[in-house]
Amino acid sequence: MQENNTQGTDISTLGEFGLIKHLSKSIKLNQTSTLKGIGDDAAVLNQSGKKTIVTTDLLVEGIHFDLMYTPLRHLGYKAIVVNVSDVYAMNAEPKQVTVSIAISKRFTLEAIDEIYEGINMACEKYNVDLVGGDTTSSLTGLCISVTAIGEADEDQLAYRSGAKVNDLICVTGDLGAAYAGLQLLDREKRIFENNPNIQPDLTGHDYILERQLKPEARKDIFESLQDAKIVPTSMIDISDGLSSELFHICEESNVGCQIYEEKIPIDYETHKMAEELNMNYSIFALNGGEDYELLFTVPLDKFEEIEKIPDVKVIGHICDASKGKYMVARDNTEIALQAQGWTNFTE
Amino acid sequence: MQENNTQGTDISTLGEFGLIKHLSKSIKLNQTSTLKGIGDDAAVLNQSGKKTIVTTDLLVEGIHFDLMYTPLRHLGYKAIVVNVSDVYAMNAEPKQVTVSIAISKRFTLEAIDEIYEGINMACEKYNVDLVGGDTTSSLTGLCISVTAIGEADEDQLAYRSGAKVNDLICVTGDLGAAYAGLQLLDREKRIFENNPNIQPDLTGHDYILERQLKPEARKDIFESLQDAKIVPTSMIDISDGLSSELFHICEESNVGCQIYEEKIPIDYETHKMAEELNMNYSIFALNGGEDYELLFTVPLDKFEEIEKIPDVKVIGHICDASKGKYMVARDNTEIALQAQGWTNFTE
Repeated sequence: MQENNTQGTDISTLGEFGLIKHLSKSIKLNQTSTLKGIGDDAAVLNQSGKKTIVTTDLLVEGIHFDLMYTPLRHLGYKAIVVNVSDVYAMNAEPKQVTVSIAISKRFTLEAIDEIYEGINMACEKYNVDLVGGDTTSSLTGLCISVTAIGEADEDQLAYRSGAKVNDLICVTGDLGAAYAGLQLLDREKRIFENNPNIQPDLTGHDYILERQLKPEARKDIFESLQDAKIVPTSMIDISDGLSSELFHICEESNVGCQIYEEKIPIDYETHKMAEELNMNYSIFALNGGEDYELLFTVPLDKFEEIEKIPDVKVIGHICDASKGKYMVARDNTEIALQAQGWTNFTE
Repeated sequence: MQENNTQGTDISTLGEFGLIKHLSKSIKLNQTSTLKGIGDDAAVLNQSGKKTIVTTDLLVEGIHFDLMYTPLRHLGYKAIVVNVSDVYAMNAEPKQVTVSIAISKRFTLEAIDEIYEGINMACEKYNVDLVGGDTTSSLTGLCISVTAIGEADEDQLAYRSGAKVNDLICVTGDLGAAYAGLQLLDREKRIFENNPNIQPDLTGHDYILERQLKPEARKDIFESLQDAKIVPTSMIDISDGLSSELFHICEESNVGCQIYEEKIPIDYETHKMAEELNMNYSIFALNGGEDYELLFTVPLDKFEEIEKIPDVKVIGHICDASKGKYMVARDNTEIALQAQGWTNFTE
């Protein structure tokens, strides 16, 4: 647990401006649209001719992450990923981010550096500039707030509201793995808490752990769709589970849907974990979360082109709103889909 | 203390999507540049031809505010104000904000509504659209993260780095009052904690209390400067005290400065409070914070025009960097100015 490192540098030795100066050193600006980054009252951007896309997400210790098993570097990385994922879900290109962090005094400078290392790695990977933010102390937990800014031509934007009857429903990658990883980490944490002599056993679960701790956004799919000149009729990123996201698209587009359980892409490790826990793996995909895959719809006549894009799977189609939103299960029964959302207020 | 209201509606009865729907009802969009607000993966803005200004600030319970004496409505209002203030400090016009809030379960729906009432009031006053955000629970304190987005023509922007030798140094309003208000609230809180039978005595201190609890950003000055066709050579908003902000402008502009203690505008109530506390009132203005007034420089030949703008005072001038950054005190001694910044890591 990095936060208990007492051997590092006390943040108070730097003061606010010292800390800002220190953190700014590692920041590189690459976007031509960034006219002014950190160092003034605000950043200045130049998105001439394009539309500006803005999204924001807040990660809170104890709710969205557990520092007992989340490396700080991964946390910084994930904070950026979940936001650029929302920009891709608009079929837009992320360009800048701002990052605000509240950290308790128990954090050393080295711990903050680790968070920013992850942030900078993600900024490099997704080619976005870190242009502003705020660093403050917290009396209690760690809190990271990121705002991502992107751009797109208006006719390229994919809202949740554009799905049409007969459109194909597509998902990228595989689903439920991040949730499976979380279940594993929670189980091992409980075992460790009951008996600190038992070392966590995480072998053979690399994929689901990585999906939970270091998710990626689908920059590649955004680019493939651009290359194929396909503008999805609707799109959303899968952060709250397939069921919930499909529900949103149908509600916003005023349509129904039919998907097939057997077509939902699920990784072998997710299967295995669900089995170990005596759970249904489809539940992981439908109601789990944090996949950061893309769910989108395209007109039926794009079927052949979509088939050519690696890592995209057609799992069903859009139908009339009157037909409802449901999944055809493996046993051919029809199951109504429901919106979930987070439940951290009710837990 | 609103947070301990046990008679209100439990947030868990709504769930995430219910809460978002509930909060969205009261949101009005007024800006033509807002193409899409809340309700998709991201907001979409259209700032055709102008530069985009982005700034963000994080307010954390126990660090930036004390719920013992901060009404939630005021807190929501202030969270918007401190951000639009940064946009005005670029000589730009705020247009949109996103708001992310982490709230503990002890908050009722009515408490959240109060925060958003303040947020909506500020959005209306400053004519900005609330276009996105995130609402999550927190295991501990309340945390509000706001990002403000504005626009300006490039030649209208006022950076910290443009001050020139002989420029006049101007401030708006009066300084130190918010800090005086904080001192008063802290004193009365301590008295109350020692003896809950003693009611806080806040009479005769309305102005400094309002400055602390419900600050305003200088939209009027931004507009007056536009009307007078004056583009400040440099500008910053005063959130960390005059000394610190002047230090920033000098450092970024590579110049020195000379200001006069007797010219620093200080309200009578601030004077009075400093006297009661046996402190020097100039210290309140120089090292206090949260004034959200504007500090800016203009060329010497703008003197007459600047004089005509109500609530703007010339307090000194920019000189060569070699002359240093100092204040001529009432007794004619010269005092070197220092950068402060927050010290909440060291307290």
